[in-house]
Amino acid sequence: MEILRQRILKDGKHLGKGILKVDSFMNHQIDPILMQAVGDEFAERFRQFNPTRILTAETSGIAPALAAAMSLRVPLVFARKHKPVTMAAEPYVESAPSHTKGGVVDLIVSSEYLQSSDRVLIVDDFLASAKTLVALVNLVKASGATLVGIGAVIEKEFQGGRALLKDVTVPIESLAIIESMDDTIVVKPSKAAV
Amino acid sequence: MEILRQRILKDGKHLGKGILKVDSFMNHQIDPILMQAVGDEFAERFRQFNPTRILTAETSGIAPALAAAMSLRVPLVFARKHKPVTMAAEPYVESAPSHTKGGVVDLIVSSEYLQSSDRVLIVDDFLASAKTLVALVNLVKASGATLVGIGAVIEKEFQGGRALLKDVTVPIESLAIIESMDDTIVVKPSKAAV
Repeated sequence: MEILRQRILKDGKHLGKGILKVDSFMNHQIDPILMQAVGDEFAERFRQFNPTRILTAETSGIAPALAAAMSLRVPLVFARKHKPVTMAAEPYVESAPSHTKGGVVDLIVSSEYLQSSDRVLIVDDFLASAKTLVALVNLVKASGATLVGIGAVIEKEFQGGRALLKDVTVPIESLAIIESMDDTIVVKPSKAAV
Repeated sequence: MEILRQRILKDGKHLGKGILKVDSFMNHQIDPILMQAVGDEFAERFRQFNPTRILTAETSGIAPALAAAMSLRVPLVFARKHKPVTMAAEPYVESAPSHTKGGVVDLIVSSEYLQSSDRVLIVDDFLASAKTLVALVNLVKASGATLVGIGAVIEKEFQGGRALLKDVTVPIESLAIIESMDDTIVVKPSKAAV
């Protein structure tokens, strides 16, 4: 996805230790035009698998997942980190490492919104360590729903997260792939699904 | 906004103590078609005030604020509850009560993304106690930007939050107004801005 690749090269900042700052267009400030294009690209790549629901994790996954949900016209469910008072008993719960606080956080989805008849597309902002994605995959498994695909906006290939997803047999698509960030940020074009 | 009013009457649940459960279409599962209509309605009501940025708070504000940002084609900034490692020093910080954890949470915005030249539209999911909205207004003040409007998807009028916003002189628009939830949920049509 060339406009995303160009945007990362223009506005992404390598802060050291493999941390890529993209908060001017994705994670704190959001460019809605870019996000709409991201959503359309996910829709293009995954429509053929007939997803009935999109699943993401709060917070940073919500924007790209909502854009994809708008384009595919299917409901979006975001896993919550805290069980709100409005949530019914017996939700599905998985743990994932916290990016902001260290330690682990729970990812919680009400059983009302993931059903065994669902065909679920997982969408998140990053594929880096892939630990959040693994927790989302486990939530889908717990619900008995069928996973049909995983989409990440940006993949940090050098962090090797795909190894953690080696048992996942559905298509895994990222829209821009960071090959390395040693001296400069090197972004590969990501090819579209067949 | 009649489709929102009908949706609240159909799927909203009064859990007691003034708590309205709308997580089947707004706060956990999100209906992207409804959210797009919400965004278009905010755009319709606030376009005349020429906002240059939309400000909301994570988590539940992101979906309606992104939909409005897509419709108005201006950037969205969401105040974060935790300062991520990628955030520059010296952000603007305000406190607001936490809905999920009790106590207070910080709302944090990088000074890079709220500038004194900005015309800011605040968008959030609820106008209830209005304490989150007050914190967002204070973030705008701290940045020196101009506040041009406040939009909430659902107003719980019986919680009297507008009293807390009495010094705000810009238009405050909610798209559906819950008058009471004593026996049944009573939703007033909200009139569009002039």
